[in-house]
Amino acid sequence: MPPSVRFITVGSLKESYLREAVAEYRKRLSGMCRVEEVELKESRLPDDPSESEIKTALANEAKAILAAVPPRAYPVALCVEGVKLSSPELTKKLEAVCNASDSLCFIIGSSFGLDPSVKAAAKLRLSVSDLTFPHQLMRVILYEAVYRCYQIDKGTKYHK
Amino acid sequence: MPPSVRFITVGSLKESYLREAVAEYRKRLSGMCRVEEVELKESRLPDDPSESEIKTALANEAKAILAAVPPRAYPVALCVEGVKLSSPELTKKLEAVCNASDSLCFIIGSSFGLDPSVKAAAKLRLSVSDLTFPHQLMRVILYEAVYRCYQIDKGTKYHK
Repeated sequence: MPPSVRFITVGSLKESYLREAVAEYRKRLSGMCRVEEVELKESRLPDDPSESEIKTALANEAKAILAAVPPRAYPVALCVEGVKLSSPELTKKLEAVCNASDSLCFIIGSSFGLDPSVKAAAKLRLSVSDLTFPHQLMRVILYEAVYRCYQIDKGTKYHK
Repeated sequence: MPPSVRFITVGSLKESYLREAVAEYRKRLSGMCRVEEVELKESRLPDDPSESEIKTALANEAKAILAAVPPRAYPVALCVEGVKLSSPELTKKLEAVCNASDSLCFIIGSSFGLDPSVKAAAKLRLSVSDLTFPHQLMRVILYEAVYRCYQIDKGTKYHK
């Protein structure tokens, strides 16, 4: 598996239990690879934003996201139209990356999602669920999924 | 939507951040319906359980689970071979239940999953993700998903 993983997210974690959950998984994952977190600012939008206001916000966030993807990284974007993989399938996919890229880079958008330019730049578009979840909770979910892949790769008993 | 929801789970939440997350969603959901939680004991298994030891454990857990499903409830079992629904699709499904059943009853198994008898008794088998998640984190995920359905049904802005 790649020795380094970067998580690019938009917006801060407001709830303490989400911050603690992410901190716990970050600590666990840090024992298996280098972990970096880039938390970008969420664009401010009015209460009832128009389509074009949302588009502009996502386009601005996209610039910051793409600038934060390391040059030789393998970018994975979380989006509902992505592929669905089991944990062992995702592990195989990420293991294959190891030869071609130095690092993994997972991207979670803001509450309005991701700009098409980010999805286009991603080498893997991954759908976790057909159900919708808050992007803040999705961060915990993604951390656990990535931690599980490293455990599967290592052949531990974490994944039975 | 049914005025009452019961969550049947197996095993206790060990991490404080998971307990806090569940408590927060329970509080929010309690504003929309009656929420009941039945947390059953997880069967004790040795470190490297055999297939038959796992089967026996799941069968024992199944008896307790089925006994905890209220008589007129609509039982929903979470399992990887279930159907995948979007949040609006799940909401529609649960709205339809309202006429036939008094309450919803969601069931999450232990770390080895659910006995076939529970899956057979469920009126809906729901798959949240092809990825595997700890059953303890799944409890938070399910709470959020159900809370979202009640919000969608109510027509609030929670789900955009």
